[in-house]
Amino acid sequence: MSIFKKIFKKSRSQEDGIFFDAIQKILGFPPGKLSHYQKAFTHRSSGKTDATGNPVSYERLEFLGDAMLSSVIAAHLFNEVPHGDEGYLTKMRSKIVSREHLNELGKDLDLIRFVDSKVPVQHFGENIHGNIFESLIGAIYLDKGYFFCEKFIQKKVITPYVDIPRLEGKVISYKSLIIEWCQKEKRQFHYDIYEDNAIDGQRLFGVKLSIDEKVVAKARATSKKKAEEKASQRAYFAFQEKMNKK
Amino acid sequence: MSIFKKIFKKSRSQEDGIFFDAIQKILGFPPGKLSHYQKAFTHRSSGKTDATGNPVSYERLEFLGDAMLSSVIAAHLFNEVPHGDEGYLTKMRSKIVSREHLNELGKDLDLIRFVDSKVPVQHFGENIHGNIFESLIGAIYLDKGYFFCEKFIQKKVITPYVDIPRLEGKVISYKSLIIEWCQKEKRQFHYDIYEDNAIDGQRLFGVKLSIDEKVVAKARATSKKKAEEKASQRAYFAFQEKMNKK
Repeated sequence: MSIFKKIFKKSRSQEDGIFFDAIQKILGFPPGKLSHYQKAFTHRSSGKTDATGNPVSYERLEFLGDAMLSSVIAAHLFNEVPHGDEGYLTKMRSKIVSREHLNELGKDLDLIRFVDSKVPVQHFGENIHGNIFESLIGAIYLDKGYFFCEKFIQKKVITPYVDIPRLEGKVISYKSLIIEWCQKEKRQFHYDIYEDNAIDGQRLFGVKLSIDEKVVAKARATSKKKAEEKASQRAYFAFQEKMNKK
Repeated sequence: MSIFKKIFKKSRSQEDGIFFDAIQKILGFPPGKLSHYQKAFTHRSSGKTDATGNPVSYERLEFLGDAMLSSVIAAHLFNEVPHGDEGYLTKMRSKIVSREHLNELGKDLDLIRFVDSKVPVQHFGENIHGNIFESLIGAIYLDKGYFFCEKFIQKKVITPYVDIPRLEGKVISYKSLIIEWCQKEKRQFHYDIYEDNAIDGQRLFGVKLSIDEKVVAKARATSKKKAEEKASQRAYFAFQEKMNKK
């Protein structure tokens, strides 16, 4: 299902144009040198080599992206958790950049559709998703530098996923917190799907949470469960003070 | 031998002034917020706490500095060694940021003179040198951002120490390469000390290498052996083409 294969009969510039648009949508800014991003999705089975004969694959960029991700997350945790000692910071970072988590991030962006490979993508293991998420970060660093890399990680990793109370194991599910509170306070609540569609093969659910017939939070995600959890988290952060008082 | 103890009877602002000058000399630029650097040298035994009662020590900054060092070295290796695969890059980075190497870097800058501790510094193990080298990098990041951090690492780590052929194990000693070549080519050579002094308790040796009574390279370092090696490396890089042809 590679985007390269789908547009096989199109000219090189048309192909680049489609890739450019798709990458721009993910990055949130126009890519500079497109070749960095093409490399970020080139699997070693493609057999490609550079001008001097070195094999081309995303693996070197993955090394680079991993390093950038680690340092951006380190700085974020350092600033966010002033009470956390070195051991705490190390542990929290490894939770955030865990293989499992990186795979989820890569899947959410459906990065695998860009992979250029001679092996069918379904033959890859789960880790390809996280690997190409890291190589994409490496490509951003090469193309635009540390600052853009930091902004991208902020937008795609930190804002949507880095939830310190949950990572600390203090909150397992925001949905269950909401339900518990509503039951205790004798409030009516319901979760409703207001959107269910697929864009570029990526399913997207929109869920709204109503309490006492008033919509208190909305969220979109790639599964109904995730969207419910995200909406609950938003409601929790909005009502945190109120909820903790009662 | 802490600088804090030496100036015990001086006023706070005098003390800060001395510290400011010493740090500026190491950094190569004036520090912004001095408190970051003071924290970088505060050992947990000092018993200091911040305004909210959290203990203050260099350990959190060490975590931050370690992350910055790793990413700067990753980017350097990525750019310098286009033929190196992910495994090679990982291995080379761990050689550069090895505990032993970091300790050497901290010692060369004599950072231990700044340590604020209730434990006598001679009771610390070897690793304190590397730890406070990393915490200094963390302080630079907080004070001035990634770019300054990168420049500092370039100047203090990469330029003087990151020698890829040697790290690859291809060159064990440049001095022995020079000697071998001189013997084969029947050339006269000698290493002479032209400088031997101590500044701020830091011994410094200057060595010049002459071949056929002509000075071909000079170098300064914290030991005679290191200065000889550095001068040999400079001569090697200057004559590389000539030496490899013969």
